[in-house]
Amino acid sequence: MSAPRPRPNIAALHAYTPGEQPTWADTAHPTRPTVKLNTNENPYPPADAVLDAIRGLPAEALRLYPPPASDRFRRAAADAHGLTPGHILATNGGDELLRLLITCFCDVGDASGGIGTTDPTYSLYPVLAATHGTTVTAVPRSPNDFTPPPPEQLAEAWNHAACALAFFVNPHAPSGRLETLGYLEALAERFDGLLVIDEAYVDFAPRDAIDLVRRRDDVVLLRSLSKGYALAGLRFGYGIAAPSIIATLDKARDSYNLDILAQVAATAALTHRDHAKQSWQAVIEQRRFLTEQLRQRGFAVLDSYSNFVLARTSADLPDAEAIYLGLKQRDVLVRYFKTPDLIDRLRITVGTPEQNQQLIAGLDELLHP
Amino acid sequence: MSAPRPRPNIAALHAYTPGEQPTWADTAHPTRPTVKLNTNENPYPPADAVLDAIRGLPAEALRLYPPPASDRFRRAAADAHGLTPGHILATNGGDELLRLLITCFCDVGDASGGIGTTDPTYSLYPVLAATHGTTVTAVPRSPNDFTPPPPEQLAEAWNHAACALAFFVNPHAPSGRLETLGYLEALAERFDGLLVIDEAYVDFAPRDAIDLVRRRDDVVLLRSLSKGYALAGLRFGYGIAAPSIIATLDKARDSYNLDILAQVAATAALTHRDHAKQSWQAVIEQRRFLTEQLRQRGFAVLDSYSNFVLARTSADLPDAEAIYLGLKQRDVLVRYFKTPDLIDRLRITVGTPEQNQQLIAGLDELLHP
Repeated sequence: MSAPRPRPNIAALHAYTPGEQPTWADTAHPTRPTVKLNTNENPYPPADAVLDAIRGLPAEALRLYPPPASDRFRRAAADAHGLTPGHILATNGGDELLRLLITCFCDVGDASGGIGTTDPTYSLYPVLAATHGTTVTAVPRSPNDFTPPPPEQLAEAWNHAACALAFFVNPHAPSGRLETLGYLEALAERFDGLLVIDEAYVDFAPRDAIDLVRRRDDVVLLRSLSKGYALAGLRFGYGIAAPSIIATLDKARDSYNLDILAQVAATAALTHRDHAKQSWQAVIEQRRFLTEQLRQRGFAVLDSYSNFVLARTSADLPDAEAIYLGLKQRDVLVRYFKTPDLIDRLRITVGTPEQNQQLIAGLDELLHP
Repeated sequence: MSAPRPRPNIAALHAYTPGEQPTWADTAHPTRPTVKLNTNENPYPPADAVLDAIRGLPAEALRLYPPPASDRFRRAAADAHGLTPGHILATNGGDELLRLLITCFCDVGDASGGIGTTDPTYSLYPVLAATHGTTVTAVPRSPNDFTPPPPEQLAEAWNHAACALAFFVNPHAPSGRLETLGYLEALAERFDGLLVIDEAYVDFAPRDAIDLVRRRDDVVLLRSLSKGYALAGLRFGYGIAAPSIIATLDKARDSYNLDILAQVAATAALTHRDHAKQSWQAVIEQRRFLTEQLRQRGFAVLDSYSNFVLARTSADLPDAEAIYLGLKQRDVLVRYFKTPDLIDRLRITVGTPEQNQQLIAGLDELLHP
């Protein structure tokens, strides 16, 4: 007897590292709340209708298999976007959509047929590529403000590597930048593969790219209920694309990928978008406040179109890791990546007014002890 | 612009076809209940503690990311089986575990390194293999009673094809047969790859194969909460294996694969196993009743160790498809597969006494009109 060996790409794989996650039980601790500004959750709660939908489910709904294709949710999402259910694929978080795209479109083990990205980006992309056993062509953004290359140049780099897919986050994480629709359309036009626009944060931005899906069958949008709808605990995302693309991805989906609780909760969330929209407006206002406060204290902060800001330290400030650790000691969690291109930066989720005040107070203690 | 093409294996893929799923809302219809005996749900409801756990979750638990690795559930499962949390991997249904096994251990595009099965078997296996792009070596069971080949012969067939993995359902679906621990150990001993024993139905059998996991690092058990714990709506399964195997699979898992609702519900279900055990006993008693009643009416029925029976028609009876359709007209759903090896059989889930009576009454109407 000898233990069977995994594929070499799996043996070599370094799994994705999630941000620190004190549980809701910990953060609900009455005497010492953690100000959790490290993984971009919405600081406001989901709509009451979401909890009502969950609590109203009878035991019978748990006993039976759920609807396999999340039809009610797909109709609610189609209505919200003025599309058809055939344009929508419901997935177990946006992460499942990313995996399905790679499974369906990327070759294994070749030098070609992999994914294209712009760096820095969501660190799960290369993990998913490595899990599948495909290549990554990472094109750098400019080091200071993370401007991506012009669309024809970026597409050319991906085409040169014969990328089958490209993942482009817009608004960009971790910078919060937002590219124009013209930029995205030119990129889709020049790129020979499937352009995936990861709109996980788009609810906090002034525009999305849905018009592109109406016109093109080589673009996929990723949406998530984790941030905009305050449902990170639910694991619910969806893809928006031409029905031919959705039908392909649907074949590779786990046959019952979403449980009945998630389905009814997500449907309620999309049906009550007005509640979520109020939280988007509140976050946008607090984003402005937080940006100003950080700039006043000497951080360089890019304009963000997302629910976080990226703050860069300067020569007059402690280094980013020291600030991260100092804030953590004060029970304020922010995200520090410790990668070469982000070594002097902190990504800070926009919280409630109270949370943002606590962050600023903690910073002031650190900067002026 | 031209639509990007999926990988050839995906383009050629025929997706898995789930059984017919009238929703809980349909089956709860007050005047015309569907007697749903087609997809092997537990006929009894889950423990009250499961619903309590779900309904007691605060909005804050939905707003925040869930624990990534389902630690509380893994501890509950480890306690239930007398193992450690390191022996347990929690997955989004047993189906996710199957997919992870193939992703981690099977080669793509080769003639070798694929999966081994015994036919007939769970029809999702070849779909998952085709999605990954790997081969299937299906060794036939005997046509009448589905006896598998002797372990050395079966292992030899899989080894000859250099299978990296083999999926062996025990109790077998769709026959309900149960092989001995000696058979399984001999199979693991002779097979060069990783032996996956799919125990989705083992809660209704007199023994499981957990002892093998204590002794061997080339065996994985699959468990599901769908049947035994009456939680098909939840999508929760788990793998049991040596910690080195679990650690490998864990790397390829979607980073937040299970939502917080499913985690608390599944943990409550395992913590209150006594409730589930009562339903197993009731199902076992009704299985005996159903088997006898069907045999009295001329069906050949194998002894089943699962929560369904496989009934074979004879020359004196209408053909299986006609019975399936006739029962459906009478609002009783059973499973008819229409494949060559199952063309004269029906798979019937064991229901409550009332449901089983309705099935028998429907049959009697059909057989003696």
